[in-house]
Amino acid sequence: MSIGEKQKVFIYEVAPRDGLQNEPKFVETKDKVVLLNMLSESGFKKIETTSFTSPRAIPALGDADELMQSIKRNPKVTYSALVPNLRGLQRAVSANVEEANFVLSCSETHNRVNLRMSREDSLAQLKDVVEVGRENQININTSLSTAFGCPMEGEVRLSEVIGVVERLTSLGVDSITLCDTTGMAYPDQVSKTCSQLKKLYPSVSFTLHLHNTRGLALANALAALNVGINQFDSSLGGLGGCPYAPGASGNVCTEDLVHMLELMGYDTGIDLTHLLKVASYMEKLVGRKLPSYVLKAGPRSTIHPVPHSV
Amino acid sequence: MSIGEKQKVFIYEVAPRDGLQNEPKFVETKDKVVLLNMLSESGFKKIETTSFTSPRAIPALGDADELMQSIKRNPKVTYSALVPNLRGLQRAVSANVEEANFVLSCSETHNRVNLRMSREDSLAQLKDVVEVGRENQININTSLSTAFGCPMEGEVRLSEVIGVVERLTSLGVDSITLCDTTGMAYPDQVSKTCSQLKKLYPSVSFTLHLHNTRGLALANALAALNVGINQFDSSLGGLGGCPYAPGASGNVCTEDLVHMLELMGYDTGIDLTHLLKVASYMEKLVGRKLPSYVLKAGPRSTIHPVPHSV
Repeated sequence: MSIGEKQKVFIYEVAPRDGLQNEPKFVETKDKVVLLNMLSESGFKKIETTSFTSPRAIPALGDADELMQSIKRNPKVTYSALVPNLRGLQRAVSANVEEANFVLSCSETHNRVNLRMSREDSLAQLKDVVEVGRENQININTSLSTAFGCPMEGEVRLSEVIGVVERLTSLGVDSITLCDTTGMAYPDQVSKTCSQLKKLYPSVSFTLHLHNTRGLALANALAALNVGINQFDSSLGGLGGCPYAPGASGNVCTEDLVHMLELMGYDTGIDLTHLLKVASYMEKLVGRKLPSYVLKAGPRSTIHPVPHSV
Repeated sequence: MSIGEKQKVFIYEVAPRDGLQNEPKFVETKDKVVLLNMLSESGFKKIETTSFTSPRAIPALGDADELMQSIKRNPKVTYSALVPNLRGLQRAVSANVEEANFVLSCSETHNRVNLRMSREDSLAQLKDVVEVGRENQININTSLSTAFGCPMEGEVRLSEVIGVVERLTSLGVDSITLCDTTGMAYPDQVSKTCSQLKKLYPSVSFTLHLHNTRGLALANALAALNVGINQFDSSLGGLGGCPYAPGASGNVCTEDLVHMLELMGYDTGIDLTHLLKVASYMEKLVGRKLPSYVLKAGPRSTIHPVPHSV
């Protein structure tokens, strides 16, 4: 990094998948295309576009194949999609996805509830997924749910997380997203987990996926930045949630995260003004106000008029 | 601090003043008394109880004198009240307030809008306030508004903040609250401002007063903790706001802050379970849901049932 150059932080937009999958009302494919084309012009390096799961399990994303064909791809963007198993990866390959995001949980109960198979079965699927990914030159990222706690089991020990990461690396996975699935992470836990994992697995590229369930997402992002994490998943408008943790609010909000990072002098490459327009469009799509602070209050630079003669 | 002893962080509850002052509907004095008596049993060392301002300017707190007579005082709690001028302090003295919180702004425009006088006039009032406080053995804290930015002027330079702090100390003030009045603070600004001021004025006791307008309150608290700040104002349920920054959400939420601090191993002395009951009572008083995460989602320790047979 040359003198005066800003430190880069990479923000991966996940609202089209992790956000929209929870929406009770189906967002039309043509509207998703408009959304994705706007997101593609916002400066993101990666967008989690959809999920190749069973349309019966997640009807909201049942149009994954069609959607991937319909969006206008920006060559600067990696179009990623979630795959829970080998069947999902095969569909993703056919749809010309550039990165597959395989998901499994640190806690056995969450894996069984979320993926309807044991963690061992997920790991067996991952072995095949990595192989097929390699054959098709598709990068395989693995998202590790409940890495900071499980809403059903409670505490997830760091040793347990390390054990799963060890299994992943032994399968050849070198790109891992640590997911705070239901907002159980807190700042010093984040510092400890991330610094330990970075130290133990220096060749793995770690991303942090935060939820704002208990208001801690930006504080956790700050703690992670302080130990050298520079890749974050986030969701436009803070759209998202978790069906197994009622009352839980959404993912960390992209525009709030970008706003914080840019104020702190990081280079996210994202155009906040444009992004706020996309977030407004997302509010129209889902038909309600989203839990975004900056969309509501405006960025810090907003100047308010003097309310009376002073 | 002996080995194994937790580090203490002091949380000062401000909802009865900074929260309720913005409520359009008058909360009955008898209900405020119930609220304050519940807060008095929550473990706070200090509660900002009301404001001795003109009842015409802030009708919501027009019952300050009566309220101070009616609450049941816990000897472990310091009952503080805001005073904008000497007249306010005289009323506070009569009401047997234990600490007066004088307020002025770092930015001239905000001082004129909020207090209807120049900053120099406020400083002249403060001189008298300090004197009368000393005569009556009442501690004088000074809250410095717009210390991290002004919603009408924009950026407030650190040199400007230091200039005002210098004036305060020269008047004998040794207890200062740095207020992020409209949520313009960001983490490294907080670190820089707090560490610089602590270094320049080691004998001053600094408190941080955060707003969550742009979702940054807990991240800012974390940044402040990291440079040794251990006193925070916060508001039950996140109640509050600022009339000069439309769309702005409230103060940092007490239960969210306590929840974060206790997870991080700090000792706040506050009973979170009891506090959540008080926050629910506050929601009843104001007749709406408040922007509290932990009140909605429950603390991190909440265990959710497994939704189907796994």
